[in-house]
Order: sequence, then structure tokens, then C-alpha cells
Amino acid sequence: MPILSELMYWLSQAAVASMAAAAVIEAGRKRFDLFGMLVVAVSAALGGGSLRDMLLDRPVFWVRDQTYLLTALGAALLMFFIARRWRMPLRMFLISDALGLALFTVVGTRVALNMEAAWLTASFLGVVTGVMGGILRDILCNEEPLVFQGPLYATAAWAGALFYIVLIDQGLSGVVPALLAGSLVFGLRVAALRWTWRLPSYRDADDARD
Amino acid sequence: MPILSELMYWLSQAAVASMAAAAVIEAGRKRFDLFGMLVVAVSAALGGGSLRDMLLDRPVFWVRDQTYLLTALGAALLMFFIARRWRMPLRMFLISDALGLALFTVVGTRVALNMEAAWLTASFLGVVTGVMGGILRDILCNEEPLVFQGPLYATAAWAGALFYIVLIDQGLSGVVPALLAGSLVFGLRVAALRWTWRLPSYRDADDARD
Amino acid sequence: MPILSELMYWLSQAAVASMAAAAVIEAGRKRFDLFGMLVVAVSAALGGGSLRDMLLDRPVFWVRDQTYLLTALGAALLMFFIARRWRMPLRMFLISDALGLALFTVVGTRVALNMEAAWLTASFLGVVTGVMGGILRDILCNEEPLVFQGPLYATAAWAGALFYIVLIDQGLSGVVPALLAGSLVFGLRVAALRWTWRLPSYRDADDARD
Repeated sequence: MPILSELMYWLSQAAVASMAAAAVIEAGRKRFDLFGMLVVAVSAALGGGSLRDMLLDRPVFWVRDQTYLLTALGAALLMFFIARRWRMPLRMFLISDALGLALFTVVGTRVALNMEAAWLTASFLGVVTGVMGGILRDILCNEEPLVFQGPLYATAAWAGALFYIVLIDQGLSGVVPALLAGSLVFGLRVAALRWTWRLPSYRDADDARD
Repeated sequence: MPILSELMYWLSQAAVASMAAAAVIEAGRKRFDLFGMLVVAVSAALGGGSLRDMLLDRPVFWVRDQTYLLTALGAALLMFFIARRWRMPLRMFLISDALGLALFTVVGTRVALNMEAAWLTASFLGVVTGVMGGILRDILCNEEPLVFQGPLYATAAWAGALFYIVLIDQGLSGVVPALLAGSLVFGLRVAALRWTWRLPSYRDADDARD
Repeated sequence: MPILSELMYWLSQAAVASMAAAAVIEAGRKRFDLFGMLVVAVSAALGGGSLRDMLLDRPVFWVRDQTYLLTALGAALLMFFIARRWRMPLRMFLISDALGLALFTVVGTRVALNMEAAWLTASFLGVVTGVMGGILRDILCNEEPLVFQGPLYATAAWAGALFYIVLIDQGLSGVVPALLAGSLVFGLRVAALRWTWRLPSYRDADDARD
């Protein structure tokens, strides 16, 4: 059996496309040239999965199958030309990013489980797969990574990864657990943006001046 | 024989805990939320060793044994709740960081030697293991990496790694060389902070305006 | 047959030396101390090839053969002492960097082809090998990466990588295609600096204020 089932394959492709599109919107705000933008988009789209595969000591997904690279380039170019014509609101960026996060978290957790990682490790690798692309994108764009900007980001990913593992453990398989867990990540993330939910932070604001 | 002896195993765990604690103190100063902080802490605690293992083309330590991940999370949470109650002085951060640096340098050098790396390569991989976690932490916190802030940092690590290799070469084994080399790194680093020792830099200060 | 032919071996060594020298010039402008500078130089010189090898799941080049590490350290020290005596103009930095980019792109593409990567993947891995060292250097120096500063950078690398693949496909082998492709990258890069060629960017300048 291949490491990625057909379902996971398509979810991966969708994740790559979402992250590439989000990266183009952000890089566009910084007015990179076309190629700098492609570099950012491809890094964001393939970065999380590459780190996951290197950590799991398995062949890197896009090196084995060049379709991923084509998807990343295609989605980036498409978004580039769309965004040259119409202004992309910040919301579009946040939604593409949330979609990429949700899909990559589920796929990353699945791949780690297939490699027989322990459940905690698998959930953590799911989070790494989900968040690393966005971190790379934001570092390359010299922005503070979204993951550190309050509204539940890594938390949403972790909750989804753990939920996915619980569903699998309950005997579910195939599309259902992937869809439920992905929706949880996406839903939490969008709700957090909508109502700016936050987790407790280190100290109260008025304490922070020392 | 396993790649990590029992001694190295415990030194690794202590290194992971020290780096996680240091990261929480720094991320706390930036007022990340709980989860952002955990991401920084886990990246700092596991980053150096992960890079070492990927460069050596061996399975990554915390993917094989999830205890490391638990240690990183546990130390980070503990420090989070301590630091919410009592203000942590900058000194606590620098000392945790120096401890993590010393332990990771020794463990990293040992692992590289076990994988039959040449001595210079092994010492360099020791330095990478020691410094990379802190570099990741500082980049994620958007701070200038400690390693570039004058007082001997990478130098201390390299001196310790080379000293460790010399001691091994002299036929010592077990606890003694690890302890001596680790103490050298820690001692050099603390002394450098205390007396702000510096290495010669590129140009004199009054030359720098061009 | 070894993965790197003798020609590629020497081109690699030259690439390592060029990138180390460029990094020392840049780190010197920031007045890092000697060791911080060596860390930046070695990261820049070995970073691109390390990422390539980890992505290709092959042993990392400088871990197997410590000559690369010696070359990086030697070139960095030499440039350090030269630059302490004579001021290095910005042009020296840009030229060393362009040389490193050209050489690493060709070597990276060759290595990926030897590992039987598909042509598009191989060209992309060539670009990664070429640009990653400089990106690391600039992030560590807290500078905006050169690759994102307009004048064709990644574009030059990609053009060279594709040109190299076309020449190989035409049945050429040995020194000639490597030299032609490397010259194309170097020439494009230098011409772009000279006449500040740019690719179309996302929006017109007067549109950017929103």
C-alpha cells in the first residue's frame, strides 16, 4: 500500500494550492517581483511537508512526484494574475491560509501514523506540517508569523490532529475522519479570527513594562 | 549498542528541558499566547538535535522516542506557570540557555562520533546541535540571535566540542569527559557574560561608519 | 560511479569558497565577532547543498567529506583577514555571491539529475541549492534576502538550471554544459545588477498605498 492513499493525495494537492495562493497574496503586499513571489509561494506550499518527510526520514513528497511542484507553481501563477487585476482583501489571505493549515494538519498526521509514529509524535508532526509553511512564508516576507499572533492557530491545528487520531482510534477510516478533523481546524481558526479568541498569555498587559 | 548510551540519554533530556525553559522565558517577554510559546519552546528544545540527525541521515531522536517531546512540553509548561507567578530575570534565561548549549554540544559531538564522522565534522555537528535551537528560538521571537551577540557563544561550544574529542582520544570514556567538556562550555559562556569577553571583530568601531 | 564527478567536485569547492567569502563581507558590515562570522560563513557555504541533500534523502556532502568544511573555514578566515586590512566594496560581495549562486545552481542540478529526479524537480533543486545559502546568510545577518531584492536572482538561477538540462538533453556532457550554464547565471545576475533589470511586480507603484 502506498504511504498516501488517493484521498490523502488529493487533500495534499489542495493544501499545496491553498498555501501557494495565500503566499502570493502576502508576498504581493510586499511587492516582490514575480520570481521572488514564486520562491515564497513554493517554499510555503512545500515547506511543511518537506520538514515532515525529512524528520520522518522518508523520501520528500514533491521530489518523488513532481505534480506537487506543478500544482504549487500553477496556483501561484493563477493567483498572481488574479491579484494583479483585483485587489485581494486580507480576508482572502487568512482563509486560504486557514484552509492550507487544516488540510496539511490532517495529511501530516496521517503520514506520521502510517510511518508508525506514536500518537503524540504523530499529532505534533501534523502540527509541524500544518504550520511550517506559513512560518517560512512569513519569515521570508519579514512579517511576524501568523502562528504567533494570538488567535488560536497552532492550537486549532493540534486540536484537529488529536481529534483525527481519536476518530481513527474509534475505528473510523477514509473520508469521514479526515473531513471532520479538517473542518474542526478550519472552523476553530475562522471562529478565532471572527471573535479574536485568545489563550491566556504570559502576563497581563499592564505588567509588561519591566 | 544503541547510538545513545544511558548517560547521553539523560544529558539529552536535561538539554531539552533547559532549552525549553529558556525559550519560555524569552517568548514570555514577547507575550506570545500559551500555544505560540509552546511552539517556540519545542522548536528550540528539539531543533538543534533534529538538524543534527537530518544532517547525519539518521532517524530523528524525538520521532523515535516520544519522551523527548514530553520533556520539552513538560518543562515549557512548568516554566510557563512559574514565570506567570514570579518575574524571571534576564539572568535566568541566559543561564538556562548556557546549560542547554553545553549539554547539547557534548551530546551532539558524541552522536556524530558514534556515526563515524571525522573529528572536525563531529565538532562542527556538536556546535550545530548546541547553537541551532537558540537560533531558531531567537528568529521565531524576532530577536537578534544570542550566538551573534559578542560574548563567546559558538566559540565556547566549539572549544568544548574539541576538548571533548581530545579527552576521548586520550582514552577517557563515560561520565568524565562529558562532564569536563560540558563544564568548559558552560564556564566559558558564563565567564564571557560576566566579563563580556569578546573576540576580535572585523574593524575597529570608529572605522565602521562607511 | 560516484555521485559527484571530479569536475563537479571542484565546482562545489569553488562554490563553497565563494559563498563563504561573500558571507564574511556581509557579516563584517554588521560587525559580528570572528566566531559569529564563521558561523554565518559556514551556514551560507554549506546550507544550500545540505538542504538539497536532505531533500534528496542522500548523505549530506560535507558530513561525508570534511574537505568542504575546511574550504569554507579557510575561505572565510582568509577573507576575514583581507577585509580587516582593506575595505571591501559592496561590489565584491555581490560578485562573490553571484559566483556562488552560479556554481551551486549547476552542481545542485547535476546532483539531482544523478539521483534521477524529474527534470522540473531537478531544476528546482538546483535553484534551492543556489539560493538557500544566501537566504540563510541574509536571515542570520537580519538583512532582506538578496533573492527578494528585484534584480533577477532566482530567475537567473532557474534559467541556468533549465539551460543546463537542455544542454545535457542535447547530448553534451562534461565541462562544456556546466560552464555555459554557470556563465548564463553569472552573466544574467551581473547584467541585472548593472542595469537593474526587473521582472513585472504585483501592482504598479502608485497603486501600492492601500
